[in-house]
Amino acid sequence: MYTLHIANKNYSSWSLRPWLVLSAFEIPFAEQLHPFPEKGAWEAYRSFSPSGKVPCLQDGDRVIWDSLAIIEYLAEHHPHVWPSDKTARAWARSAAAEMHSGFQTLRNNCGMSCGVRIALHNISPALQKDIDRIDELWSQGLQKFGGPFLAGENFSAVDAFFAPVVFRAQTYQLPLGKAASEYLQTMLALPAMKTWYEAALIETWREPAHEKEVFDAGKLVADLRN
Amino acid sequence: MYTLHIANKNYSSWSLRPWLVLSAFEIPFAEQLHPFPEKGAWEAYRSFSPSGKVPCLQDGDRVIWDSLAIIEYLAEHHPHVWPSDKTARAWARSAAAEMHSGFQTLRNNCGMSCGVRIALHNISPALQKDIDRIDELWSQGLQKFGGPFLAGENFSAVDAFFAPVVFRAQTYQLPLGKAASEYLQTMLALPAMKTWYEAALIETWREPAHEKEVFDAGKLVADLRN
Ligand SMILES: N[C@@H](CCC(=O)N[C@@H](CS)C(=O)NCC(=O)O)C(=O)O
Ligand SMILES: N[C@@H](CCC(=O)N[C@@H](CS)C(=O)NCC(=O)O)C(=O)O
Repeated sequence: MYTLHIANKNYSSWSLRPWLVLSAFEIPFAEQLHPFPEKGAWEAYRSFSPSGKVPCLQDGDRVIWDSLAIIEYLAEHHPHVWPSDKTARAWARSAAAEMHSGFQTLRNNCGMSCGVRIALHNISPALQKDIDRIDELWSQGLQKFGGPFLAGENFSAVDAFFAPVVFRAQTYQLPLGKAASEYLQTMLALPAMKTWYEAALIETWREPAHEKEVFDAGKLVADLRN
Repeated sequence: MYTLHIANKNYSSWSLRPWLVLSAFEIPFAEQLHPFPEKGAWEAYRSFSPSGKVPCLQDGDRVIWDSLAIIEYLAEHHPHVWPSDKTARAWARSAAAEMHSGFQTLRNNCGMSCGVRIALHNISPALQKDIDRIDELWSQGLQKFGGPFLAGENFSAVDAFFAPVVFRAQTYQLPLGKAASEYLQTMLALPAMKTWYEAALIETWREPAHEKEVFDAGKLVADLRN
């Protein structure tokens, strides 16, 4: 059986991606949650993850680190992780890889904190550019493949890659167009997304650096956490 | 036939990756080189690439953007792009994905410029950390799978992912251990790497922002370009 190492559900955007794929496809796995160490104490993560980061998947002797490598590893055994249509799959992989290495401003300025609601102080041009590209990408996928998911009728790994953006959009009320907003609701209604979200809300750990980053971004509207 | 859109060979680290995979595996493709526009004029790239970035692969109607998505697309048709051994493949994908989304300091402080030699002003702790991780990763792969390539006997996509680091290590004389230094020489001797390098040297375009970034990093030791 697989073991997936993750961090706090409220904060850990990278952990969410493979967790969601495993959960949505009902692939059995054991979850090991390691709350974020205080800033600078990352070395603790090296005891189970070669890069010192989460997520990290164990499959017997094999250790696969990095969210995208984990997804490709799972896709070798489990059909439908990527869309079965070749064109949709190529698009899905392109969009997921763009997310994997990009959207730095969105990631830095709008840290994931599922249970909090923030009114942003302002949207910088760089942040607006990231939001515009998300809107464009989502709208394009939904139109091209017919929705309600990004690459067509079924949930696939590309949706998992944007799942943290879905929570961020909810937290920071990011301005999105009609198609993208509908997609947001589709994702928030996904059973595996709800399970993660509810688990995030009842967590009691607070990591000062993450808290500060989120609260510095705007005015606190609500904190729905335990 | 595939068309691969790339930018200047001297600078474009992301373009190098799929170009090297296509070339090393002798997969026929047409190359379209678009010299980097002056800073801020990236919109020009949007005419052929959905993300406005290179590399970008065209296969008939399909457009695949992002280096990692291109590699996975090619791997569906061409055996050996990833190692055929399952454990080696999982390791290779993990290491490639770590490179794809990480090593920010190395990428920012040591911009790729194949034809130039620079003595770094100093190595900050953050840069040292990236260099140490490169050394560790390379040494681990070489040891685990027997070399001379990162995932064993044959060149594979993980080597392509680290190829820009190979050129950077040459340009900035990055301090590496014995195993990693030997691997560097193996890569520099690869015919496809030599072809790219020679093409980079005879380019005459100079893009001011890239030039400045590279020359600001240290003292110019040599400029071997045309
Ligand atoms: N490229 C990695 C990124 C993973 C990542 O940055 N994870 C964060 C938590 S969400 C982490 O473990 N940070 C610890 C650190 O930066 O040392 C992936 O896709 O899995
Ligand atoms: N994640 C992308 C990164 C591509 C990238 O940043 N490419 C650079 C050139 S090496 C580029 O096109 N920059 C233009 C821009 O940033 O708009 C990939 O892996 O292909």
